[in-house]
Amino acid sequence: MGQFAIGVDVGGTNTVSGIVDAKGNIHEKLHFDTKDYPIFETYIDRLARDIDSLIRHTTGAELAGIGIGAPNANYLSGLLEDPINIEWYTCNADGSRGNRMHIIPFVETVRRHYPAIPVVIDNDANAAAIGEMIYGGARGMKDFIEITLGTGLGGGIVANGEMVYGHGGTAAELGHIIVKSGGRQCNCGRRGCLETYVSATGMVRTMLEILATDNRPSSLRSLRINEITSKMIADAAEAGDELACMAFEETGRILGEALANFAAFSFPEAIFLFGGPIKSGNLLWEPTKRHMETNMLRSCKGKVKLLPSGIDNDNAAILGASALVWKELHKRGNVCK
Amino acid sequence: MGQFAIGVDVGGTNTVSGIVDAKGNIHEKLHFDTKDYPIFETYIDRLARDIDSLIRHTTGAELAGIGIGAPNANYLSGLLEDPINIEWYTCNADGSRGNRMHIIPFVETVRRHYPAIPVVIDNDANAAAIGEMIYGGARGMKDFIEITLGTGLGGGIVANGEMVYGHGGTAAELGHIIVKSGGRQCNCGRRGCLETYVSATGMVRTMLEILATDNRPSSLRSLRINEITSKMIADAAEAGDELACMAFEETGRILGEALANFAAFSFPEAIFLFGGPIKSGNLLWEPTKRHMETNMLRSCKGKVKLLPSGIDNDNAAILGASALVWKELHKRGNVCK
Repeated sequence: MGQFAIGVDVGGTNTVSGIVDAKGNIHEKLHFDTKDYPIFETYIDRLARDIDSLIRHTTGAELAGIGIGAPNANYLSGLLEDPINIEWYTCNADGSRGNRMHIIPFVETVRRHYPAIPVVIDNDANAAAIGEMIYGGARGMKDFIEITLGTGLGGGIVANGEMVYGHGGTAAELGHIIVKSGGRQCNCGRRGCLETYVSATGMVRTMLEILATDNRPSSLRSLRINEITSKMIADAAEAGDELACMAFEETGRILGEALANFAAFSFPEAIFLFGGPIKSGNLLWEPTKRHMETNMLRSCKGKVKLLPSGIDNDNAAILGASALVWKELHKRGNVCK
Repeated sequence: MGQFAIGVDVGGTNTVSGIVDAKGNIHEKLHFDTKDYPIFETYIDRLARDIDSLIRHTTGAELAGIGIGAPNANYLSGLLEDPINIEWYTCNADGSRGNRMHIIPFVETVRRHYPAIPVVIDNDANAAAIGEMIYGGARGMKDFIEITLGTGLGGGIVANGEMVYGHGGTAAELGHIIVKSGGRQCNCGRRGCLETYVSATGMVRTMLEILATDNRPSSLRSLRINEITSKMIADAAEAGDELACMAFEETGRILGEALANFAAFSFPEAIFLFGGPIKSGNLLWEPTKRHMETNMLRSCKGKVKLLPSGIDNDNAAILGASALVWKELHKRGNVCK
């Protein structure tokens, strides 16, 4: 296998680790329940057990580094800053749970276990962008944008062949671009953020608005409001529900307009869309592409490709995390591919 | 003087050239009327006369290159793509005016006169950004945004110490970020672009809207609509005209919100504002800064400085153009400072 990387996906539910070679083949995967280890130090001890076990599987091969994808991770500082859906606590002298941690020194703590091995961290969307660059559709591209669609909307920007981290390390917060002044309340405390419209949850809100505004029949009217999912809207649209189709049209309009604005900002060669909502066939894709082209500035028109992610969705998190390692080696001039 | 650069500012009215040393001192300036030379080849011949004359002034010093700032210039291609307010024509065999040129091979034509000298071109706003980086307030910064305010609104983005040109060479079209879906008609053919609200002309449109919506008295009501300028609105506001003050508040609100979005995109260390409207004391500055901070994402809050340009306004175009030369030398590893 030659060189390999360990990719770690830190999620609110599961922590998954895997061995990945430079071509993006996954050779072994392990996982455990994140919530079983609320004390941060014991969580890292548990993670190190998996990493040790993976390393034992790779006798004779060289470990290039450990790449970690985690919510709200800051590449520059190595910290997790108020991670969403994860609660970690300090450890008291007697081993009991101490105070809630808001700033988590993830890289520093992992490095204590592996002082001689490069350890890199980044947030999920940036890891997806680097995965796209190393293994996916962005190979050879110097300028592109990755959009990850799920419960929220994440972004990763590459310009001049480099990730755009910005001065504070957390640039490309594309889900929090305000697309409607004074619009929908966002979890970030502000109003009108893109992800309040374009995401699995945003789409449900749009569906409710349409059901309120329009009085045509819809199969969704018989559902409990807090049980409606974007998948149900997709199923209804597939079955010909006119109002569900309107929700996709409206979501695509807002996303398409936002993508045209992103193009005016950094003029990428391609914008990649990644995540569940993209898999609903043409329902979201078609209106997104149409509205992106309609709103594109003349100088960019026809020059920015809209592409589905080239990364295997099921293993994307591990692949993205491992790609951080290859990118870092490349940056340090120690090219491994 | 050691090394020097020649900076050329190509404007619709004047073409100004100057000798600039690496510290940003201007040693000599020449200019001629752009409109006197509608045939592009004769225009370049005339420009070369000025450049030759400037070179003669610098005996003993080394010419590092010629930097050109021009509307709609593309750094990557060296072309002017449909420049605003300038009409150039091909030259017929008998020397008469031929066809209107839309794509102008500016760099290639200048290089014919100076085959051994580096020739660099960029649009005005990018040249201003590079001027800021070389001589102004952005010295030492790796991540910043320059906003130029005038008749329109231009932008230049620096990330990881490099200009963001994007795949097609014309990124950072910040005046054409759509801030209001279906909003004001823009010269670019689309609607709701930032510069239809935030610019000298955008402000006049905002003033008209306020005069239509509000029925309080205003000194501006006695003016002919097509004679109102942003300067008159500033004067009225200074004199206590409430509606004129509202126009500044509204312009600052839209600009501040847009700047907060730009921060979510590339997380710059600073955003520099350049141009006439900024000189109207605190009238535009105060609401812009306030709305920028109010709308700033938590992770960026208090971490993105809003600063006035550190470049002398009167000579900014020449300085920016000359800075292109120093930046290019730096990029080629031939650091000159």
